[in-house]
Amino acid sequence: MKSPVQFYFDFSSPYGYLAAMKIDELAAKYGRDVEWHPVLLGVIFKITACLPLTQVPMKGKYSEHDFARTARFHDIPFVMPTVFPISSQHAARAVLWVANTKGRDRSVAFAKALYRAFFVDQINISGAEQVIEIGRQFGLDAAALEQGIATAEVKDQLKMEIDDAIKAGVFGSPFVIVDGEPFWGFDRFDQIEATLKNGKI
Amino acid sequence: MKSPVQFYFDFSSPYGYLAAMKIDELAAKYGRDVEWHPVLLGVIFKITACLPLTQVPMKGKYSEHDFARTARFHDIPFVMPTVFPISSQHAARAVLWVANTKGRDRSVAFAKALYRAFFVDQINISGAEQVIEIGRQFGLDAAALEQGIATAEVKDQLKMEIDDAIKAGVFGSPFVIVDGEPFWGFDRFDQIEATLKNGKI
Repeated sequence: MKSPVQFYFDFSSPYGYLAAMKIDELAAKYGRDVEWHPVLLGVIFKITACLPLTQVPMKGKYSEHDFARTARFHDIPFVMPTVFPISSQHAARAVLWVANTKGRDRSVAFAKALYRAFFVDQINISGAEQVIEIGRQFGLDAAALEQGIATAEVKDQLKMEIDDAIKAGVFGSPFVIVDGEPFWGFDRFDQIEATLKNGKI
Repeated sequence: MKSPVQFYFDFSSPYGYLAAMKIDELAAKYGRDVEWHPVLLGVIFKITACLPLTQVPMKGKYSEHDFARTARFHDIPFVMPTVFPISSQHAARAVLWVANTKGRDRSVAFAKALYRAFFVDQINISGAEQVIEIGRQFGLDAAALEQGIATAEVKDQLKMEIDDAIKAGVFGSPFVIVDGEPFWGFDRFDQIEATLKNGKI
């Protein structure tokens, strides 16, 4: 089995959402699994001194236009959230807790459910209560999830995941690493596919 | 005749260079001319508070890797300049002067020659003297070019071009506008093509 594709994303990232809807299918086409890594851009942006796209003068309005257009171009449902950006640490912790307790497949499916809640169903997933409610609808034990995401263990795990991501050079969302080769942005999926197919560009 | 595609670029922009090597061919495929607009990102970045990509922590190293990889992916010759970024006002003024005195086609061909000098032949085109020398090799009257780019008329023309670009929403390079629809980045050429083909996405 070839080594898995490493996929880094923030739940508040529109291009991260678009990538999340496509990455498993793309990797599977070339016989690869995907390891999903939730990160917090808020932490990473302290290093890069970057702002969320929508808060950059001139870029902000264009970006919202481009999120929706890019989603249409790739036939992915998308509704711009009315509250944006949001803090995504509860969602990120929840995904780690589900990976720890229910395994990777359930965790990835739950990550997709959280992303769809935010970028399709207009649910603000910044609060623990919304994340837990989405977990309940997803079939998780709401009380166990609530406890789980509040543990020091899961909080520390997310911090370590982010540290590891930064060490691997991750500075944005989506960020994909294929056999050590880094790709930033949903608009690098063509180059990711060429790398998966041919081993290099 | 359909209205021309508006193409904005900075001579110090690697993705602008890649776009410059492809935009005429892409537009021509759909029966469109291209209007080339040199701009100075240094002026625009004062509004957006952005840094050149290579100066952003973490992004810098990745960006240089991505410039070269993206060039290979699209079969475009590319050598990362040793001095980067550069100030590009002399090159931009020269292109405007050639457009004024020799017409649009010569101006576009000269812009491509300047871009190739910087991103293929490792010539630092920041100084007036290098721009004039490239002009001489291109077949221009070097003395006339030297005089031309030093006139208040051409300097004011570049300022007005940049003002107009900012009013049109241009905040990066390359930036392309098709019938009012804005696209930022060489990686939007797939969406530009779809728009040229179908009128919208």
